[in-house]
Amino acid sequence: MNTIGHIFKLTTFGESHGAAVGGVIDGCPSQLKLDFGFIENELQRRKTAQSPTASQRKETDSIEWLSGLLDGVTLGTPIAFMVRNEDGKPEDYEALKDVYRPSHADFTYEQKYGLRDWRGGGRASARTTLPIVVAGAIAKQVLKEKDIQVLAQVTAMGYAEQARKEGDTVGGVVECRITGVPAGWGEPMFDKFSAALAHAMFSLPAVKGFEMGDGFALAKMKGSEANDTFINKDGKITTLTNHSGGIQGGISNGNDIVFRVAFKPIPSIAKPQQTVNRAGEACEIAIEGRHDACALPRAMVLVEAFAALVTVDMGMMQAGRLFDPSTSSGLRNLS
Amino acid sequence: MNTIGHIFKLTTFGESHGAAVGGVIDGCPSQLKLDFGFIENELQRRKTAQSPTASQRKETDSIEWLSGLLDGVTLGTPIAFMVRNEDGKPEDYEALKDVYRPSHADFTYEQKYGLRDWRGGGRASARTTLPIVVAGAIAKQVLKEKDIQVLAQVTAMGYAEQARKEGDTVGGVVECRITGVPAGWGEPMFDKFSAALAHAMFSLPAVKGFEMGDGFALAKMKGSEANDTFINKDGKITTLTNHSGGIQGGISNGNDIVFRVAFKPIPSIAKPQQTVNRAGEACEIAIEGRHDACALPRAMVLVEAFAALVTVDMGMMQAGRLFDPSTSSGLRNLS
Amino acid sequence: MNTIGHIFKLTTFGESHGAAVGGVIDGCPSQLKLDFGFIENELQRRKTAQSPTASQRKETDSIEWLSGLLDGVTLGTPIAFMVRNEDGKPEDYEALKDVYRPSHADFTYEQKYGLRDWRGGGRASARTTLPIVVAGAIAKQVLKEKDIQVLAQVTAMGYAEQARKEGDTVGGVVECRITGVPAGWGEPMFDKFSAALAHAMFSLPAVKGFEMGDGFALAKMKGSEANDTFINKDGKITTLTNHSGGIQGGISNGNDIVFRVAFKPIPSIAKPQQTVNRAGEACEIAIEGRHDACALPRAMVLVEAFAALVTVDMGMMQAGRLFDPSTSSGLRNLS
Amino acid sequence: MNTIGHIFKLTTFGESHGAAVGGVIDGCPSQLKLDFGFIENELQRRKTAQSPTASQRKETDSIEWLSGLLDGVTLGTPIAFMVRNEDGKPEDYEALKDVYRPSHADFTYEQKYGLRDWRGGGRASARTTLPIVVAGAIAKQVLKEKDIQVLAQVTAMGYAEQARKEGDTVGGVVECRITGVPAGWGEPMFDKFSAALAHAMFSLPAVKGFEMGDGFALAKMKGSEANDTFINKDGKITTLTNHSGGIQGGISNGNDIVFRVAFKPIPSIAKPQQTVNRAGEACEIAIEGRHDACALPRAMVLVEAFAALVTVDMGMMQAGRLFDPSTSSGLRNLS
Repeated sequence: MNTIGHIFKLTTFGESHGAAVGGVIDGCPSQLKLDFGFIENELQRRKTAQSPTASQRKETDSIEWLSGLLDGVTLGTPIAFMVRNEDGKPEDYEALKDVYRPSHADFTYEQKYGLRDWRGGGRASARTTLPIVVAGAIAKQVLKEKDIQVLAQVTAMGYAEQARKEGDTVGGVVECRITGVPAGWGEPMFDKFSAALAHAMFSLPAVKGFEMGDGFALAKMKGSEANDTFINKDGKITTLTNHSGGIQGGISNGNDIVFRVAFKPIPSIAKPQQTVNRAGEACEIAIEGRHDACALPRAMVLVEAFAALVTVDMGMMQAGRLFDPSTSSGLRNLS
Repeated sequence: MNTIGHIFKLTTFGESHGAAVGGVIDGCPSQLKLDFGFIENELQRRKTAQSPTASQRKETDSIEWLSGLLDGVTLGTPIAFMVRNEDGKPEDYEALKDVYRPSHADFTYEQKYGLRDWRGGGRASARTTLPIVVAGAIAKQVLKEKDIQVLAQVTAMGYAEQARKEGDTVGGVVECRITGVPAGWGEPMFDKFSAALAHAMFSLPAVKGFEMGDGFALAKMKGSEANDTFINKDGKITTLTNHSGGIQGGISNGNDIVFRVAFKPIPSIAKPQQTVNRAGEACEIAIEGRHDACALPRAMVLVEAFAALVTVDMGMMQAGRLFDPSTSSGLRNLS
Repeated sequence: MNTIGHIFKLTTFGESHGAAVGGVIDGCPSQLKLDFGFIENELQRRKTAQSPTASQRKETDSIEWLSGLLDGVTLGTPIAFMVRNEDGKPEDYEALKDVYRPSHADFTYEQKYGLRDWRGGGRASARTTLPIVVAGAIAKQVLKEKDIQVLAQVTAMGYAEQARKEGDTVGGVVECRITGVPAGWGEPMFDKFSAALAHAMFSLPAVKGFEMGDGFALAKMKGSEANDTFINKDGKITTLTNHSGGIQGGISNGNDIVFRVAFKPIPSIAKPQQTVNRAGEACEIAIEGRHDACALPRAMVLVEAFAALVTVDMGMMQAGRLFDPSTSSGLRNLS
Repeated sequence: MNTIGHIFKLTTFGESHGAAVGGVIDGCPSQLKLDFGFIENELQRRKTAQSPTASQRKETDSIEWLSGLLDGVTLGTPIAFMVRNEDGKPEDYEALKDVYRPSHADFTYEQKYGLRDWRGGGRASARTTLPIVVAGAIAKQVLKEKDIQVLAQVTAMGYAEQARKEGDTVGGVVECRITGVPAGWGEPMFDKFSAALAHAMFSLPAVKGFEMGDGFALAKMKGSEANDTFINKDGKITTLTNHSGGIQGGISNGNDIVFRVAFKPIPSIAKPQQTVNRAGEACEIAIEGRHDACALPRAMVLVEAFAALVTVDMGMMQAGRLFDPSTSSGLRNLS
C-alpha cells in the first residue's frame, strides 16, 4: 500500500528519523537522460529552512541513485534512490514518546500496528514526501517531451508570520494547472483522471479537501451556468469556459486540467495543548522542535509532483489501450 | 479500470441503453445470508421518478442474481448480478448522435475510444451507478454485523422545483457519516482511508469536490483551532472535537468518519444551449428527454454505497495485516 | 481474485449449476468488430458431447452479450457476457452433497469458505472455463490484426476409449505455439512472459505441470547443448534452435513461443473409490453422472484462449511502456 | 512489474554492476523482531564461491536496512534494504558490450528497451535474486510462528565438476516441500496457490519447468491411480496419498505442498560459441569471467524464499477474507 500508479509506479519507504527515505520508480520509459540539476532544483523547492514560515531542520537531501540508470540514462528497469536522514535529532522527540500529539498520526499508527516510530512522526512525517518530489521531477521530464506542463500556486493562506509569533500555524489552498494534456486521457468509471488526482492529493499529509474546476462552487450553480459550451477554435474543438477543470466523465477534454487542494494547518504548534498519554492520562504538551508555521510554500512542489505522476500514468495507460502495431514493435525515438 | 477495491472488489459493466447494467462482487465474505429486501429497498432509494426533482424514466430494476449464492447465502465466490435496461428509448437520443452535449462525456469518450454509445450517455450515464448501490447494500450488511453504519444526508441544494420550471438544473452537497469504525483501519501513504473515499466519490458522475471533516474550512483555521484534543472518555481514548473527520494520517481514530461531496448540476438541461457537432459545426440543442432537475436525492444512496464498499475493504485489509494464527486457520462464525 | 490481466483483464463468475457462467472483459481495444461466428466456433471446440471421450452433458452455450458493444463493435468499455446453465441437473449431485470426492475441490472449498456449492463442482467445475474461451476468442481476434497466431495440439494422451470402458479416466499433455510475437514483449523480473503463461495455465482445472521450450529436458542438458545460437537470417536476428521456447529473461525474442501443459486425469471416475464424508466417516462412492474420460480434446482451446489473453496483455503493456507521443494522442485505425 | 504479492509484497531493484541491489517489503506484519542472524545465514546459502561448482565472484553481501524497523522490530511500514555491489568488475564485460550471448537476455532487453546495462547481465543477472532471499527469510520467520516450514532439495543435477572442466555447465531439478499450511489457503480461479507458486518460480532466472505434486507423471496415470483418497486420521481429514501435492482446486488441503522446478544450465559457458553482434555480424565468443558451473546449489534457497513469500501472502489473503470482528479490532499478540 506504499505503491501508487498502474504503469508508471512509485513505491516509497522511510521514516523521518530512520536511516533513509527513498523510493523505487517502476515503469519509467527507457532512454531518458535524466536532468539531475532539475531534480535537485525541485528538491530545493521542497526543502525546509528556506522561508520565514519554514522549519529550521537542515536537510542536505543529497540523492543516492541506486539502480535503473546507465550513464544517467534510464534503462527501463526500476529506478531506486534514497536520501539519508543525516540531521535527525531523535532525542528531541523522546519526551513525546508516550504522548499522543493532537491531530497527528501517533495514536492511529499505534492502534493500527501496536507500535510506532515516535521519532519525529516516523512514517507519517512530512519528510516522507521527499521521494514523491524526486519521482515527480522525473515525471515532469517525461511530460516535457510532450509539451505538458504542471504548475501550482498558493491561492489562499493564513497570516503565517503572525501565527509563528503566536506559536501557532496556518493552513491554505494550492491550485494546480496541467496544460497540454490531449483529449482522451483518463479511464472512465473507477480510474477517472479526477479520481486519480483526488486519490494522489489525499495521499499528501494535511490534505483535507480537493476540488476539480470550480468544485464546491459548482454545487451552488445552475446547469445553465455550470455547463461548458463547446466551440470550434481554429479547427479544434474546445470549450469556451472551463468550469469542469478540463475533465468530463473522468476523461481529459484537451482544456487545462485545474484543481485545488485544501491543507489544514500543521498540527505541531508551540502553544500548550491538552492531550492524553499512552496510559490514557491527561497531560499538557508544547511542541517545540523545528516546525513550519505553514506547509503551503513547500506544498506546491508536492502537488505538482503528484499531478505529474498521475498524468504520466494516465498517458501510458492510454498508450497501452491504443496498442498500435506500429508502436508495439517499434521503439520510441527520443534522440 | 472498471474494478475498484483490494480484497472486497467490485467490477461493473453496462451502458445506459445496452442490454443490461450489472456487476461482479469479488471477495465478499462467505456464509452471509443476503437480505434481498434491504437490497431492493436501497435500489428504490436510487430509483428515478420518485420525487418532483427526478426524471420520468421508469425502471423496474429487477435484479437477476447470476452467481455466488446458494439458497441466498454467499459462497465466497464472485457474486454476479444484472438489471436489464427494459425501458430504454434509444430513439430519443438519435438527434444527439452527432452532437456534443455541453459538460457531458460525449466528446471525451469519442476522443478516447474513437466512437461512443450515443444512446443516453452510454457508459457515462447515471444508470451505470446502479451496480454500485447493489454492492453497497451488501457491504452495508457486512458492516452491520460489526455495528458499523453509514448515513448520508443532503446539506446543501439549489431550488430544484424552480429550476425544473426554468428548464434548468441545480447541484448540491451531500454529507456522509460512518459510525462504529474501530481505530486502526486505513493504510498509510498511498491507500489512506481518506484517499480511498476521495477516489470512490470522484468515481460518481457529477462529483467535483470532496472534503474530510471540516475540509476547506480547515484551510482558514489556525492549528490551535483545527487540532482535535485527545481525551479519555470512560477509559477509551477519543477526541473532544472532530475537525479531522475521524481520520488522522490516513487511519481511522475511532471517531465518526465524516466527509462531504459536492455535485455539480446535472448538465442535461431543457434550455437551449450552444455547442458543436462532430464535424465541428456550431449548433443549438435543447435536451428534452427524461432528466432529473437535481441528482442530490438519488446521490445519497450512492455516496453511502461507496462509503460502505471502501469501509469493508479497509476492514478486510486490516484483518489481512493482523494475520492472527487463531483466525487464519479457523472459519468465521456468523450463525 | 477472479480477475486476471493488467490492461486486458478478464473477470469471470459462475458456478456449474447456478444461474449462469460469464465474464467481464475490461480493456479490450475499441473499434473492433467482433467475429461472433468465430467466437461460437471456439465455444464448439470446448463443448461437451463432441467426441467419444467427452461427457454427455448437452450445453447449448448461447452467449448473451450484456454490454460493451454497439452494433457488434467494441466500445472500449467492459464487455460483459453470460451463458445460462440450462441443462443442469443438480439432483444428480445430491448424493454427493456430504461426501468429498477424491482429488476434487469439495473438501478444500469447504475448508476455505465454510460451505460449498455441491451441485456439480460449483465454482471448481470445468464449466467455469467457458468464459475464458469467449475472452480468448476476442483476444485472438486482436492478435490476428497483428499476424499473431496461437495453436495448441495434444502431444501425449492415455488410451481414453479403453479408460472409459474401465470406468476410468486419463490425462495428457498439450503443447502450444504462439507465432508472430515481436521481440520485446514481456516484463522482466515478476511479470515475465513465461511466468504469466505459467500463472494462466495453472489457473485451468487439472493442470499439474508447465514447461517453456524444452522445459524439464533442459535440466538434463549441458549449457553447450541447451543454448540457442543467434544468427542473422535475411537481415533479422533470430536463433538457430529454440530450446528456450521463444522467451529469454522473461522477454520474447521473436521466435515462436512454445510451451507444454500437463493435465492430470479427470478425478471423476465411475469406478468405486474410498473416501470420507463431512462427518469424517469412511464411505465408498462411484461417480456416475456425465463426465469426460479425458479433458485433453477440450483443453486445447482453453490453453489457446489463455495464451491469447496473456499475449494481448503483454502487447498492451509494452505499448504502454513505449508511450510514443504520436500514438498517445492519436487513435488506432482499424478500418 | 518489479513488484510481487497482494498483501505481503516485494518490490526489487538493482542491476548486477550498478550501485546496489535491494528491495522494499510492504505489508510485513508489525511487531516482529527480525532474526538478523538467520537472514545473514540465508544469504550465505545463496552466496557464490562456496562450492566447487560456484563462481569466483566474492560478494560480502552486507545488508543495509533503510526503513521499517525500530530497534530491529518491524513497524508495519515498508522495510527497505540494500546490498552494495562492491566487487563488480564491469571491465570484464566490456568485450561483450555489443555481442549477444546465446540464451542470455542481452538481445531481448535491447529489443524491449532500446538499450541495456551490458555490465554483467544488468537487471537479468542472478545477482538480482539477492533481495528475494532477504524477503524470503523474513517470510520464513513469519511462517515459523505458525509452525509452517519450507524446505528445498536438489533431486536431479548433471555432473557439474566434469562440466566445469569441459568449460560447460549443467542444469537440474529442485524439489520443495511446504509443511504445516492449514487447509483453505489459496484463491480459486486466477490466484490459485499452485498458480502463484508457478508464477513465482518462473520469476527466477533459468527456470524452464514447474510441476505440482506428481506433475507431468500424472499426465500418464489413470484417474484411479492419480486420485488421492480421503481418510480420517485421528479425527482429522487428510489424504492417503499426495499425488496432488497438497493443492486441490487451487486451495491447500492440509497435506504437504510439494512442487518441483526445472533449471536449465547456466548459459555462460567458457567453450567458444557462435553468435552475432549488434550489427548483426556473426562472431565467436568464449565467456570467461566468474561463473557457476551449476545454479542448483544456490537455487535451493531461492526456491524456498519465493515459496515462503507466496505462502505468507496466501495466509494474509485468507485472514483478510475471514474478517472476524474479534481480530479486525484487536492486535496480534506476538510476545
